Amino acid sequence: MNSLHTKLNVVDGLVVSNFNRDVFEDMQRGGLTAANCTCCIWEGFEQTVQNVSQWKKFLRENSDILLQVYDVNDIARAKASGRVGIILGWQNSSGYGDDLSNVYLFKELGVSIVQLTYNTANAVGSGCYETRDTGLTDFGRDLIDTMNAAGVLIDLSHVGKLTCVEAIAHSRQPVAYTHTLPAALRDHPRNKTDDQLRAIAEKGGFVGVTMFPAFLDEDKASTIETYIRAIEHVISVIGEEQLGIGTDITQGHSADFFKWINSDKGNGRKLVDFKNATALNGFETLDKFPSLTAAMDRRGWSTSRIERVMGENWIRLLGEVWKGYRLNKVAAE
Amino acid sequence: MNSLHTKLNVVDGLVVSNFNRDVFEDMQRGGLTAANCTCCIWEGFEQTVQNVSQWKKFLRENSDILLQVYDVNDIARAKASGRVGIILGWQNSSGYGDDLSNVYLFKELGVSIVQLTYNTANAVGSGCYETRDTGLTDFGRDLIDTMNAAGVLIDLSHVGKLTCVEAIAHSRQPVAYTHTLPAALRDHPRNKTDDQLRAIAEKGGFVGVTMFPAFLDEDKASTIETYIRAIEHVISVIGEEQLGIGTDITQGHSADFFKWINSDKGNGRKLVDFKNATALNGFETLDKFPSLTAAMDRRGWSTSRIERVMGENWIRLLGEVWKGYRLNKVAAE
Repeated sequence: MNSLHTKLNVVDGLVVSNFNRDVFEDMQRGGLTAANCTCCIWEGFEQTVQNVSQWKKFLRENSDILLQVYDVNDIARAKASGRVGIILGWQNSSGYGDDLSNVYLFKELGVSIVQLTYNTANAVGSGCYETRDTGLTDFGRDLIDTMNAAGVLIDLSHVGKLTCVEAIAHSRQPVAYTHTLPAALRDHPRNKTDDQLRAIAEKGGFVGVTMFPAFLDEDKASTIETYIRAIEHVISVIGEEQLGIGTDITQGHSADFFKWINSDKGNGRKLVDFKNATALNGFETLDKFPSLTAAMDRRGWSTSRIERVMGENWIRLLGEVWKGYRLNKVAAE
Repeated sequence: MNSLHTKLNVVDGLVVSNFNRDVFEDMQRGGLTAANCTCCIWEGFEQTVQNVSQWKKFLRENSDILLQVYDVNDIARAKASGRVGIILGWQNSSGYGDDLSNVYLFKELGVSIVQLTYNTANAVGSGCYETRDTGLTDFGRDLIDTMNAAGVLIDLSHVGKLTCVEAIAHSRQPVAYTHTLPAALRDHPRNKTDDQLRAIAEKGGFVGVTMFPAFLDEDKASTIETYIRAIEHVISVIGEEQLGIGTDITQGHSADFFKWINSDKGNGRKLVDFKNATALNGFETLDKFPSLTAAMDRRGWSTSRIERVMGENWIRLLGEVWKGYRLNKVAAE
């Protein structure tokens, strides 16, 4: 591990791996300071409660290397103690089970980054693979109000275009694409146009750049260098202070997992074919973060840019969005 | 009970009462042959399974006066044995829990009339109180295909206008408004225009006419005569062979129930104010069906019209929609 990397706060805006001790050890070996770990994709309320409960067990059983993140101070604690900070996050608001009160319940349990829709339509809005994106529903607006009040970061990565526009307009807090890529480099429903990147940034929002090869311009042949060029494109559009990493790494998952995520609601029509381009060459596992820092360094990035992109930008955004709820809590007491 | 009424097959296309032995006895006293009894409104999968399970208990414990309806032969059995046939139905497809397979599971348990959306948007489409009706989602189309294959009648009473248009166009089977009123007599989001009534009828569909006074033209002052005039309006638009009764009677429910149904997803924004116009004067309870037959008779309706509207039309429609699945089952065995 190079000496620059060991000093960095490294934040990954989206990890959706098949979590277990091996994966957690790779995270620690990779020098990861904090990661948004997915614990809801298509599931409803009850199954998501169970998933969160399973995460609490992971955190208890792996407390030597993991630490749960409730606010940004916990990210600093993770760094200071050499552990990995776990941010619980969802890729679908389905986990709330259509009940606004549950936003607060799950926030208390640490669920603090939640995507509005996953790939297709739900009661909140449309997804990026929905034939007709119809924007936010009335309930979707109410959910955004509640997430704003509860200090939950709104994620729009897999959300449909119009639904994104309306969510960005409606939210009082900055929102994020936690894991996306520029459509300018590859036209794909999961990628965002330069206008979309600018729109989220103009409202103080954020772009986590994913390395999922099926959406990168070199597809299955993509490497860390391909990924760095994608980050540089985003920087050329929105500058270097509102973006970060969001690997979307699927370490340890089987074909069944990909079939499940690629079926509407986990059981319906097939949505997209990744054609096995699911792991980036040179970054197949979570211990590879030092290679990323090294590649940025080789590419001639300044230390301050590397620090920002690798984690400082994420920490600033999370502090801003999450802070609101803590203040509200104090005010209410 | 007049002699005509006792001979009739009486079918109620929508009952949403606070079910218990008293209500069941009123149904039997009223000479009700079969009724579509709501057991899902805002609930998700798990709670709906419990609601269905509770109904099985009702059916076991009241088998002297109730009988479950799986197909139209069971309606004939109910009539012959002087019992009330219970059709399990939902006012929201939320009970399927976003899983198409569950359509078959619940069909086997007798759930054979299901509304796509209740009042607002869900993953299937929009409701009648949704600010912007955005039509059927992709999953909505897949759900209709599955309901068609499983022989589940699609109900569009509380569904948004565009979503209705698209559902009527997409369904291979006739669909129904199980409980609605003509907007020509009263402009209200829950009522249907003459064009909407014609559109559903032209595809072989059905109009159950509700007596819920908040949607009737005389509101809280409405009586059985007001209701009969509403039925006559529907007849003037689509003839007398594709309509029936769908009382929407809420016998025994408290203010909490009305608050729950009138909040988005049961917990969100307020949708509509019934202003206590929730029970029709002269038809407050389910034992009042003989008064309805008598009023039709007084109004000079022919016996054949009374027979059709009170139940024969419903039985023909249900036979047509439900038959498909039985054939599929035989074919699969």
